[in-house]
Amino acid sequence: MQINALVAHDAAQPLSSGHIALRAVQPQDVKIEILYCGVCHSDLHMARNEWAVSRYPLVPGHEIVGRVTETGADVSSFKTGDIVGVGVMVDSCRECHFCQQQEEQYCEAGFTATYNGIDKYTGDSTWGGYAQHVVVDQHFVVSVPETLPLAGVAPLLCAGVTVWSPLRHFNVQAGDKVGVVGLGGLGHMAVKLASALGAEVTLFTTSPEKGADARRLGATRVVVSRDAAQMAACQTSLDFIIDCVAAPHDLDPYLATLKTNGRLVLVGIPDRPHQSPNVTPMVFRRLSISGSSIGSIQETQEMLDFCGKHNITADIELIAGEKIEQAFARMLRGDIKYRFVIDMQATRW
Amino acid sequence: MQINALVAHDAAQPLSSGHIALRAVQPQDVKIEILYCGVCHSDLHMARNEWAVSRYPLVPGHEIVGRVTETGADVSSFKTGDIVGVGVMVDSCRECHFCQQQEEQYCEAGFTATYNGIDKYTGDSTWGGYAQHVVVDQHFVVSVPETLPLAGVAPLLCAGVTVWSPLRHFNVQAGDKVGVVGLGGLGHMAVKLASALGAEVTLFTTSPEKGADARRLGATRVVVSRDAAQMAACQTSLDFIIDCVAAPHDLDPYLATLKTNGRLVLVGIPDRPHQSPNVTPMVFRRLSISGSSIGSIQETQEMLDFCGKHNITADIELIAGEKIEQAFARMLRGDIKYRFVIDMQATRW
Repeated sequence: MQINALVAHDAAQPLSSGHIALRAVQPQDVKIEILYCGVCHSDLHMARNEWAVSRYPLVPGHEIVGRVTETGADVSSFKTGDIVGVGVMVDSCRECHFCQQQEEQYCEAGFTATYNGIDKYTGDSTWGGYAQHVVVDQHFVVSVPETLPLAGVAPLLCAGVTVWSPLRHFNVQAGDKVGVVGLGGLGHMAVKLASALGAEVTLFTTSPEKGADARRLGATRVVVSRDAAQMAACQTSLDFIIDCVAAPHDLDPYLATLKTNGRLVLVGIPDRPHQSPNVTPMVFRRLSISGSSIGSIQETQEMLDFCGKHNITADIELIAGEKIEQAFARMLRGDIKYRFVIDMQATRW
Repeated sequence: MQINALVAHDAAQPLSSGHIALRAVQPQDVKIEILYCGVCHSDLHMARNEWAVSRYPLVPGHEIVGRVTETGADVSSFKTGDIVGVGVMVDSCRECHFCQQQEEQYCEAGFTATYNGIDKYTGDSTWGGYAQHVVVDQHFVVSVPETLPLAGVAPLLCAGVTVWSPLRHFNVQAGDKVGVVGLGGLGHMAVKLASALGAEVTLFTTSPEKGADARRLGATRVVVSRDAAQMAACQTSLDFIIDCVAAPHDLDPYLATLKTNGRLVLVGIPDRPHQSPNVTPMVFRRLSISGSSIGSIQETQEMLDFCGKHNITADIELIAGEKIEQAFARMLRGDIKYRFVIDMQATRW
């Protein structure tokens, strides 16, 4: 089945409209007409082969919201017309310890990525959401609360669950003092979700002008991280920090803001190491630094239900597909509040 | 009350026999005739002012085992003749969140160290265990199982509880796969305690000749950490690592041995930072790096009771007090299996 998509043909050329062949709908499959697809920074890295793992042609996109148009014979969870989402994963081994306990993101065989993965039926690449349709096994499809504005739901499928998962896994509670480092695609979702969970949110930013926005999104305190006096004023005040900054940076000023038993969670992977953290406060206050990778399908569904209940979506800027290169350029400048989303129906193929 | 002690008069001179004045026994105090005192590496750092916090004269020693010779009017937990222990702490604020929940080692006001602390009654320094007697508030005194060989108990009071506390706090279970990095004073206790808890212990060492000893102490696998093939063979095999090496080193080869959700606990503080750990495996396997500082009084008592039940003590070399400088010199060369302990009754003052 040939469909239209935005295709990267190699690392140097801009994305362009092209055609890809989706696999035939299998018994467990759901075929989805894509309505919206969020533009994640990793899409840009992958389109440009900046992680040296890209295989071309490549169709990015793993923040997908769409409408079910066809279901395989064994699909029980979805029916034609349902509004659904697909995130970063479209398959996993289903058999390992982690798959068995519904944590497919840590599948021991490695999950199948929504794009640039290997489709187990075709042996070809998996194709992402910058396209008209996608075919995905029902286990990796989630239900979207239809009361939400759907374009703003798309970024929940990656950016949202990436911050939701550590908040939940590490048991952040109402009343906890939570820090969020960086107000970008992930950080703005962390502020929204943590504050909706009842946490008191402190937003750390290098950009003083983001303060008003951070408060609008739910932060009760905004700290300009380059201001040593402001940082000193929040020493040992936080239970938990989610650090959404992928660029290499010094973690010590953030460790200093954690109470005894506090935890700093890194969700971004820097291309060069962060400055080495100081062990002294880690020992004397039993601090932890942890990593966390996206979230499970179960967590994604839980988050979407929570967002439905609390009326939470991402703050987005909607674009037509043909504007993707301009969007990439603006992302590189940090000129986006807070996620671009491609409107497939507005896209001229 | 003047007593004999081994006194550091400044950073440059060797310890020498001298006199110190203990405080009068207060209503909550226990006076202890010291039988044995372990020689912790921090004693050497403090005697030489290597952490730039030493106040002279200074009497080191915080791994104390002795016999109660006098009790204050309000002491209910101990009586004359009891065999007791004193570790790294002799007081704390008693009022903060951590003191209230029996975690005095994280006292928000800072605990009072057994030596080089400030005695709240005298305003003078606290005096450590390289001495004939010590006077300590009963809350900071623990009972020693009298079935154990007492000289080998002394190192449990610091080295032992420093590894016991993270094993317990982070909930290491029978059957867990536990790594121990470094077979020194702390590491050899970690091997003994973790294996007695039912964990399967892997000992990482740079010294192949320590293998036989590690197995004797309870390790089921010994890995020479400089051997990349041996390290590769234990990739993603461990649940928990306790890293007892204070010298700066590369944590990445150890992170590689952790399963998803694994944790590396640092109990040593390097004088220069460790190489910065690689964030990638931390994110993709949700790994944690944590610090941990000594242990609480409650944990110390729990560990001593456990050691009594399992007949565990430290492997020690007993010395008379006048040999302390030779012991320090051998510690600097790593020439000790695995802790020096001063025999006070054999010491000529």
